[in-house]
Amino acid sequence: MQITILGNGSGGPFQGRHYSAQVLELGGQIFIIDCGEGTQMQLYHHRVRIDHCRQIFISHLHGDHVFGLMGLLTNWCLKQRTTPLDIYAPSGLQELVEHSSRLCGVRYPYPINFIEVDASRHELIFQNKQLEVWSIPLNHRMPTSGWLFREKPRARNILKTAIETYDIPFTLIPGIKAGADLHLPDGRIVPNAELTKDPPAPRTYAYCSDTAPSNAVLDAVRGVDLLYHEATFSKAHSHEASVSFHSTAEQAATVARIAGVGRLLLGHFSGRYQDTDTLLEEARAIFPQTYISVEGERVAV
Amino acid sequence: MQITILGNGSGGPFQGRHYSAQVLELGGQIFIIDCGEGTQMQLYHHRVRIDHCRQIFISHLHGDHVFGLMGLLTNWCLKQRTTPLDIYAPSGLQELVEHSSRLCGVRYPYPINFIEVDASRHELIFQNKQLEVWSIPLNHRMPTSGWLFREKPRARNILKTAIETYDIPFTLIPGIKAGADLHLPDGRIVPNAELTKDPPAPRTYAYCSDTAPSNAVLDAVRGVDLLYHEATFSKAHSHEASVSFHSTAEQAATVARIAGVGRLLLGHFSGRYQDTDTLLEEARAIFPQTYISVEGERVAV
Repeated sequence: MQITILGNGSGGPFQGRHYSAQVLELGGQIFIIDCGEGTQMQLYHHRVRIDHCRQIFISHLHGDHVFGLMGLLTNWCLKQRTTPLDIYAPSGLQELVEHSSRLCGVRYPYPINFIEVDASRHELIFQNKQLEVWSIPLNHRMPTSGWLFREKPRARNILKTAIETYDIPFTLIPGIKAGADLHLPDGRIVPNAELTKDPPAPRTYAYCSDTAPSNAVLDAVRGVDLLYHEATFSKAHSHEASVSFHSTAEQAATVARIAGVGRLLLGHFSGRYQDTDTLLEEARAIFPQTYISVEGERVAV
Repeated sequence: MQITILGNGSGGPFQGRHYSAQVLELGGQIFIIDCGEGTQMQLYHHRVRIDHCRQIFISHLHGDHVFGLMGLLTNWCLKQRTTPLDIYAPSGLQELVEHSSRLCGVRYPYPINFIEVDASRHELIFQNKQLEVWSIPLNHRMPTSGWLFREKPRARNILKTAIETYDIPFTLIPGIKAGADLHLPDGRIVPNAELTKDPPAPRTYAYCSDTAPSNAVLDAVRGVDLLYHEATFSKAHSHEASVSFHSTAEQAATVARIAGVGRLLLGHFSGRYQDTDTLLEEARAIFPQTYISVEGERVAV
């Protein structure tokens, strides 16, 4: 599981930062998370291939998270995309896309399936063989949902030595990887624990932007490996954070600490900060495993 | 009169090109022409100040000319703009902006006045003391208007030597600059031609993107100092140009030659062309005063 940060800014195109957008990759699958203006340029610039993307998750309809979506969807038209696309978002997105498409003469050669997400609930909204995606109710000025990506447990790893020792036939391997014991021709039973080892622990990634600090967020992201949390402001601007339903770096770090996450990645920085040193310092004082998101950077979860 | 090219690409964000957008400056006034996705980033990147802009001209509603508009308008909200804004565009733009604004929670602290332009006519749509703007009916897949910026004749330049020779009082100067003769106290009359010299010729700039070659365009841009004309394709792709209602570089140059313009600036290049050498060669064979638009470049008209 890997994420690529395409934009870590908020508000305006200041300090060379771009608007919110990320790509999550897992086993060849591509998921796009938010789509601020310029997302397609950032994808091109950082050479991120998204042609296989089948799911897009939009947190909310503020422009810095969604004004790049029409460009992306239109671009796929030019590429003659035929693969169906699912877009998960709070209420209003379908109307926005369909209305804009009609007025701007965009006709899609691929089906788009809009799934309206209840931004007030933490619930399973998508799953396939490898992954579950859960909504996270964020606390913002309009209905806004974060996203929790939870890898499903993988099959146990069968030991090469066991295959050799017991000459295990190919047909039995899927069962053993799923946990079965091995019944030998002479009647002996080899317990699964001697044949396999634990798979890597399922990885979890939570994306929380934009939000004021919230217990609902805290509960939803408990124990995730990597938490991306907005840190729009430093504590010197905590009033601005409060009135705009955003978080300070300290508040993001407090969520990370109490929720016991593995690592915290900060983003959605206000354009007023030329660098993010202060934000990082303030957060690390509370949660040392804090990092600043860097545009173009691939982060393994 | 100066234009700044912010984007010279079409279709996708290929070859590092950006979508159509330009800024025209004249005597401290700022006009924005088209507003493709990423316009606000390009403005920031190239340090073009547009806070004093009061008029925006959108040629048509295809995404590569308009998907940056909502971001630009929203950004002015964050900056607490109060100056009124006029947006000139063919039918549909007001609905697009108002509908998107409602869904995306954009509330404007400044008034926006939408002026719907009849894209089938060549007519005066805006004027102030310094400038007239005329619509140019383009030939595209949806109602599309080019724009002709025509500087108004400036006052005659009064000669410093005449002021000294005849001790012309300050109060008479505006009249003389407007063409009046000078009546001396002794009854003599000094003709205006001895007091003034011609002002610089009024400058004209025409913006034509997107369009198939058309006589209406040709008539409207006759004799302009600078013509920006789309050249989406080379002659090797003239079929693509034809079916998509675009022009080849040759066709743009033919318009320039027949219309007798001063210089031709090509843009709106298809992403398939890594460089524009072929397009320039093909155009210059027909109209030598052809140039390739360069993003970030300021061009004096």
